[in-house]
Amino acid sequence: MTFTLKSLGLLLGLLPAAALAADETGMLDYLEREQARFAGIADAIWEQAELGYLETESSGLLQETLAAEGFAIEAGVAGLPTAFVASYGSGEPVIGLLAEFDALPGISQTAAPHREEDPDKHSAHACGHHLFGAGSTAAAIAVRHWMEDNGIEGTLRLYGTPAEEGGSGKVYMVRAGLFADVDAVLVWHPSDRNAANPATTLANKSAKFRFRGISSHAAVAPERGRSALDGVEAMNLMANMMREHMPQESRMHYVITSGGSAPNVVPDFAEVFYYLRHPQASELEQLWERLVATAEGAAQGTGTEMDFEVIHGNHSVLPNETLAQAMYANLNQVGGVEYDIEDLAYARELAKSLQGNADDLAAAAARIEPMELEQGMGSTDVGDVSWQVPTTELRAATWVPGTAPHTWQAVAAGGTAIGSKGMMVAAKSMALTAADLFQDPELVRAAQREFLQRRGEDFEYRALLGDREPPLDYRR
Amino acid sequence: MTFTLKSLGLLLGLLPAAALAADETGMLDYLEREQARFAGIADAIWEQAELGYLETESSGLLQETLAAEGFAIEAGVAGLPTAFVASYGSGEPVIGLLAEFDALPGISQTAAPHREEDPDKHSAHACGHHLFGAGSTAAAIAVRHWMEDNGIEGTLRLYGTPAEEGGSGKVYMVRAGLFADVDAVLVWHPSDRNAANPATTLANKSAKFRFRGISSHAAVAPERGRSALDGVEAMNLMANMMREHMPQESRMHYVITSGGSAPNVVPDFAEVFYYLRHPQASELEQLWERLVATAEGAAQGTGTEMDFEVIHGNHSVLPNETLAQAMYANLNQVGGVEYDIEDLAYARELAKSLQGNADDLAAAAARIEPMELEQGMGSTDVGDVSWQVPTTELRAATWVPGTAPHTWQAVAAGGTAIGSKGMMVAAKSMALTAADLFQDPELVRAAQREFLQRRGEDFEYRALLGDREPPLDYRR
Amino acid sequence: MTFTLKSLGLLLGLLPAAALAADETGMLDYLEREQARFAGIADAIWEQAELGYLETESSGLLQETLAAEGFAIEAGVAGLPTAFVASYGSGEPVIGLLAEFDALPGISQTAAPHREEDPDKHSAHACGHHLFGAGSTAAAIAVRHWMEDNGIEGTLRLYGTPAEEGGSGKVYMVRAGLFADVDAVLVWHPSDRNAANPATTLANKSAKFRFRGISSHAAVAPERGRSALDGVEAMNLMANMMREHMPQESRMHYVITSGGSAPNVVPDFAEVFYYLRHPQASELEQLWERLVATAEGAAQGTGTEMDFEVIHGNHSVLPNETLAQAMYANLNQVGGVEYDIEDLAYARELAKSLQGNADDLAAAAARIEPMELEQGMGSTDVGDVSWQVPTTELRAATWVPGTAPHTWQAVAAGGTAIGSKGMMVAAKSMALTAADLFQDPELVRAAQREFLQRRGEDFEYRALLGDREPPLDYRR
Amino acid sequence: MTFTLKSLGLLLGLLPAAALAADETGMLDYLEREQARFAGIADAIWEQAELGYLETESSGLLQETLAAEGFAIEAGVAGLPTAFVASYGSGEPVIGLLAEFDALPGISQTAAPHREEDPDKHSAHACGHHLFGAGSTAAAIAVRHWMEDNGIEGTLRLYGTPAEEGGSGKVYMVRAGLFADVDAVLVWHPSDRNAANPATTLANKSAKFRFRGISSHAAVAPERGRSALDGVEAMNLMANMMREHMPQESRMHYVITSGGSAPNVVPDFAEVFYYLRHPQASELEQLWERLVATAEGAAQGTGTEMDFEVIHGNHSVLPNETLAQAMYANLNQVGGVEYDIEDLAYARELAKSLQGNADDLAAAAARIEPMELEQGMGSTDVGDVSWQVPTTELRAATWVPGTAPHTWQAVAAGGTAIGSKGMMVAAKSMALTAADLFQDPELVRAAQREFLQRRGEDFEYRALLGDREPPLDYRR
Repeated sequence: MTFTLKSLGLLLGLLPAAALAADETGMLDYLEREQARFAGIADAIWEQAELGYLETESSGLLQETLAAEGFAIEAGVAGLPTAFVASYGSGEPVIGLLAEFDALPGISQTAAPHREEDPDKHSAHACGHHLFGAGSTAAAIAVRHWMEDNGIEGTLRLYGTPAEEGGSGKVYMVRAGLFADVDAVLVWHPSDRNAANPATTLANKSAKFRFRGISSHAAVAPERGRSALDGVEAMNLMANMMREHMPQESRMHYVITSGGSAPNVVPDFAEVFYYLRHPQASELEQLWERLVATAEGAAQGTGTEMDFEVIHGNHSVLPNETLAQAMYANLNQVGGVEYDIEDLAYARELAKSLQGNADDLAAAAARIEPMELEQGMGSTDVGDVSWQVPTTELRAATWVPGTAPHTWQAVAAGGTAIGSKGMMVAAKSMALTAADLFQDPELVRAAQREFLQRRGEDFEYRALLGDREPPLDYRR
Repeated sequence: MTFTLKSLGLLLGLLPAAALAADETGMLDYLEREQARFAGIADAIWEQAELGYLETESSGLLQETLAAEGFAIEAGVAGLPTAFVASYGSGEPVIGLLAEFDALPGISQTAAPHREEDPDKHSAHACGHHLFGAGSTAAAIAVRHWMEDNGIEGTLRLYGTPAEEGGSGKVYMVRAGLFADVDAVLVWHPSDRNAANPATTLANKSAKFRFRGISSHAAVAPERGRSALDGVEAMNLMANMMREHMPQESRMHYVITSGGSAPNVVPDFAEVFYYLRHPQASELEQLWERLVATAEGAAQGTGTEMDFEVIHGNHSVLPNETLAQAMYANLNQVGGVEYDIEDLAYARELAKSLQGNADDLAAAAARIEPMELEQGMGSTDVGDVSWQVPTTELRAATWVPGTAPHTWQAVAAGGTAIGSKGMMVAAKSMALTAADLFQDPELVRAAQREFLQRRGEDFEYRALLGDREPPLDYRR
Repeated sequence: MTFTLKSLGLLLGLLPAAALAADETGMLDYLEREQARFAGIADAIWEQAELGYLETESSGLLQETLAAEGFAIEAGVAGLPTAFVASYGSGEPVIGLLAEFDALPGISQTAAPHREEDPDKHSAHACGHHLFGAGSTAAAIAVRHWMEDNGIEGTLRLYGTPAEEGGSGKVYMVRAGLFADVDAVLVWHPSDRNAANPATTLANKSAKFRFRGISSHAAVAPERGRSALDGVEAMNLMANMMREHMPQESRMHYVITSGGSAPNVVPDFAEVFYYLRHPQASELEQLWERLVATAEGAAQGTGTEMDFEVIHGNHSVLPNETLAQAMYANLNQVGGVEYDIEDLAYARELAKSLQGNADDLAAAAARIEPMELEQGMGSTDVGDVSWQVPTTELRAATWVPGTAPHTWQAVAAGGTAIGSKGMMVAAKSMALTAADLFQDPELVRAAQREFLQRRGEDFEYRALLGDREPPLDYRR
Repeated sequence: MTFTLKSLGLLLGLLPAAALAADETGMLDYLEREQARFAGIADAIWEQAELGYLETESSGLLQETLAAEGFAIEAGVAGLPTAFVASYGSGEPVIGLLAEFDALPGISQTAAPHREEDPDKHSAHACGHHLFGAGSTAAAIAVRHWMEDNGIEGTLRLYGTPAEEGGSGKVYMVRAGLFADVDAVLVWHPSDRNAANPATTLANKSAKFRFRGISSHAAVAPERGRSALDGVEAMNLMANMMREHMPQESRMHYVITSGGSAPNVVPDFAEVFYYLRHPQASELEQLWERLVATAEGAAQGTGTEMDFEVIHGNHSVLPNETLAQAMYANLNQVGGVEYDIEDLAYARELAKSLQGNADDLAAAAARIEPMELEQGMGSTDVGDVSWQVPTTELRAATWVPGTAPHTWQAVAAGGTAIGSKGMMVAAKSMALTAADLFQDPELVRAAQREFLQRRGEDFEYRALLGDREPPLDYRR
């Protein structure tokens, strides 16, 4: 019954020789020199804090930056106005980097190391996607120069992927075939630690279930009404009963997004928003049918009508140990984040709001986690990419160790040098790994072999969100 | 929204002249003389305390008694082994008396005026049906002798009706057409007071809803199970939600009759037993559809299967003020119950377990309630008879005033002289009213006119329990 | 168990002689002449459509109008910025008129006879309080002139009462003792028919129950979270179970006003808004304790914390047949609403959106309902006044017959001549009745006697909303 | 969040040399010769199929057998009439064997290879405890003779442990200190396969939660009643909500053991029976507090009263790899079960009712599972022993491969030679391992060292069922 993340044994293999080709030093030097520029791009996106599918300025800034460096830009891909593909070079291999840039709603914070709302803002980069976008862009530009300088063959692509937070931007891009010819994808994510572990996540699917009843004066003629909220509550009850009869690794959670307007009127509309997750997409689809049945049963039993709209859906991440090993070697080469006195003072101040020991913050930020397979319980639209192309994800310490994502602490540190230093660790590691892939065809082939073995030969990709159009206004 | 029991105005009319025809005195004298015999029959049935459809001895004793007095007995009518029709005379009018004789399960009590279980008994006459059956039989025999003595034309019938308590015996007898040619029906019921009020009740329908799931070890593989108890609980929740959206006079109540066997096994069977009531059968049928929908929705939402068995169904009682007036006049003629010193001592002792003032027990037992329309919230299978034939129901004080039905106090007093004295008040009043009906064709016609007016010309009887077979083993 | 509204038999009494004192004709003439002015005031308030406790312009306009006619104005009474008392004259008797003026949120409609939203408005007079306020003001001014012209002794008061819709403005005014010395209160309400019936309502109490849990990532660490929404749903379930065990005339209804923000976060806050009603305040208070217990039990059972804020509370209306008879006589004197051809054309057009027969609209608007006691199932803060002072309420047809309150049809017709004609019927009837009270001390005494008889001598007023401060920002 | 069963690395160690001491051959020969006798004892217990704490005959038969072989019998230990300790020898080490003998209620089956109820029986050995008891007894007697023959020092104990199925017999024996001086415990369990894996289980605690309300006629006066069933259902709802907020390895399941008696009476009593489990007893205790809070909250919210009785409680099994290795070596020495033609025909016939491949039944029965740590999700009172004494458990194939415990197939095969052959595999392996322990002090010390390391030095045993008295009549 327990889902087991199976290592294919590669973790016990030797690390690839991590000797730097002489020319890769130039790439690192380039990033070192340009750090302030890329930090400035990240800061600009941090300031904007644009929400999913509304990241016009943020996406535009990255596109301009890349275009100015000679990348060919294809904007508005996959029907997503803020998605883009920036390309350099030609031929094989095709190596992709991913860049996110959307912020989160309902949170406001300055860069101060204590809770301080910014009265002018209702959204913020609490998941560090401003660093994500700027860091990947930095890596892409560094690799592009290295390719030119060294006459490297192949195609480099930077995918600008909007609306990761609940918008599943990458899923529409995968569905549109934008990754069909890619050989490997490298991605990173802001974090409070440095790691290159191959990890997986839970596949996730969400929908808004909408119940419609019959309105009536709740005191004068309740018997003529049918409460849509009854439908929602009956569904929730049956979903809670269903928990016992789901595999224990499943996750299901909901909020009531519309629960009636005034007590003296029987609600004729109510809405509940569900997420359902499981390590395996196939199992998730079966559980989903059962969740829909709770909604249908609730409608039948309460005399209401129900329809639902799938909001988003992400596959789990398919790990790739081959790529992870390569990334791990390069991360070790680059090293973790080094705090200066100012960073450390800031980190200590902020750490007062966190649980745990604040003494070894500098050491923690510099540490690199040992390799091991991880089963994460979150979800990301990187998942869908990973079932199309061998993909690996790096994490770099852009937040004070101990910080959880989606907190004000993540917003705050992400707006300081702590954030941009972590971002550069990521940019360097990504750039080095991309360079490895361009130079080592056997590495690409090994990653492909592992990919096919894990995924299965007869796998057929199906977006969990089906054929719905992108919810371009889900954050309006 | 409020159901209103509408008087047709007859209550304001004059009482019929209550002068006794000389020959009716003989009838009363007969009953006075034979009181001990009929009390003995009641006692025998009280001792047996046979449950619904299992009243072989009780029904047999009444049949023997009636046969010995020259009644023709048709036994086992309507597919009910313990139902019978005892007839005397021929031609019109056809006047029916009803006799019940079933006891209640789960209660045990001696005739003591304090709580005292009878260790040998698991059922008891907590609703006084032993008096009901014996009293109606006494009335029938008295009328039969009066008919012979006075050369009265017409047909007298005593209906032995089993399983009133949840078995709906009379409904099967109505459905079988046994009341099709009857002109008027007289019935009485044991009570703690004397009254001839026209009253109505709630129509009532019941069913057992059975859910079937999938069994599994609840710790090792709960995800493979589907709990039938989830189905029951989801139905109950939605039914409780439905309460808000039902007319306020409705009543709905349930018990869980099977809730799984062992906690470590996911229950593959569970059962809930519902009653649903409303003053009007037509409205009840609509509410019933909604209740069934809660069960269907619950099954769908919990991955279980559901079927249900209608257990019983009673129409409301259609009151008849014309007959009630006639009965009321005779009840006044007979007078209420008179306690002797022994009765009073017993009543005072028993009354210690009741709320209220024990001082005026003798006066309360003797009092006759003034006429008024009553909306009762209980239900009885007399209801179905009342939509076929003009029917009125008398109550006589067979229990210590303040006693509720279905209590040990009702069992106790029903086994003493208090019970049999009340029974004789009923027998006399019923006999006198039957005699009125045999002698006064206009009274019969007036009752019929009112009946048609209340019921509506185009009424078509449909048993609420549908075409199910009698549940002859529902008490086994 | 059934609540019965008991008539004291006065309804069978003779109508008071309705001969008009000659001088009252002048009062009616005055209102006839000034109709356009008062209609203009109503229109201005209709346009503003200000919400509860925010009716600055509307209340100000009425105050100005009354001040200009010589009334003394006390503004901002009872801690309510938009409440006022306008007084004229001195000594006894003290006769009060009530004037409301708040609009309803969430509805927008022009004066067109078909559904037509006004894009500039998010609130509207869907309950006709613009007419209510202007009509009562008209009556007050007419009476004031008549008092002066005829040298009438006594004090006339117009109470400007804000926030009837959920704000319970009058309750704070009663609590502040503003009605302590008043002899009788007259009030009216816009309607789709003309009636002076003595009526009662349900006592009502509301609160927002707020649950606080522990937030956590719903997929990564649900076991560390405690869902506040679980608290809300558990409370609702137990409240729904409680329905079975409440007197059937009770009413209980709720909406979920905060049901969590994002599915992937365990909600640490959730809120549900309840109304609870019963014909009797004392019974309501007992039911309220049980409702609070469901909230407490839900918090305990779900590991959350709960507090609640009482939002509003209204007593039932205590009817006064004496005053109702006087009002009824005057309403008959004045007559119902007379539609001209234009009104009728409008009414027919609007009636297409209503159920029922549109043929006799003119006749229906002109008709006056026969007197009878009414048990309404709604609630109003007039209730609290009625337990302090003998009070009666008139209804006049300001809406097309068949229109329900709180609908766009009520907004629309209320903005036309149909509305202002109905308003003048009310103003005239109120003015005549006030004049009766000033002239007939026995009428005042009779109303007082009935009042004391119905209320009980030892009644002690207690606001159902307790000692809370007015929720002045409940509509912000 | 994921509970991990941590191997201490011993599994990678070498198997102990499994060379048989010459004298152990005699022990195996003895068991071979006496097979029919012990099979007969098992059959006798199978026939009796006595339920928990009522195993008078079964326990008595084992006691007689052991006494006849020179064991000293202490009967009725720990306040349990059917528990006993049979001892042989003296001094150290003290080696214990466990013997169970209780049957399961609600199941009836003959020894036929198809579903065939035995009309005379309402209980059966569906978990094979007849073999368990007889097999351990056989082992004990064989070891006893070997000790005598070879002059072996030490104390051999056979614990007769009643009521494993829900009665937690061993917990009372542990609580009474009966295992305080034991060095190692060997136990086995009937199964459909042969294995000596170190395994753990879930700690488990159960209780019956009893709600008391107020009875009332459900149609006439529901508002005066308080439904005890409401209490049960509200508790269940909140428990189902709690599932989301429990560690995923937890297990919680319930059945409603009393759900009201008749729909027309508001239930004044209702009962629900819960099991709650978690791999760690300490975590279980915390979850238990939360479960109790759901019951308390349900009582408060439904106006009912609640108390609960803890029924049973078992610690998880603490595995011991040292002992498991020794057992594994001996199991391999003995070999699995060998079917003859008759057995195989029977197995094939029975296997028709099982899922899976019936072809390799003989091979499957003979196979021995490779060693690995196992996290079982069931529970057993062996758990409490294992936190007092180093304990290991063997499984032997007494059922046709593919058979689940608690099924008719387990009853059936357990009544044939298939059952007794598996039992002898167990008896031989247990005897050999006991002999190892008597001869190898280092093995005993190594087991002790591992035990202390796993358990922790400062562990203090506390029975999960608290200080309740044994529920000696829980199966009556």
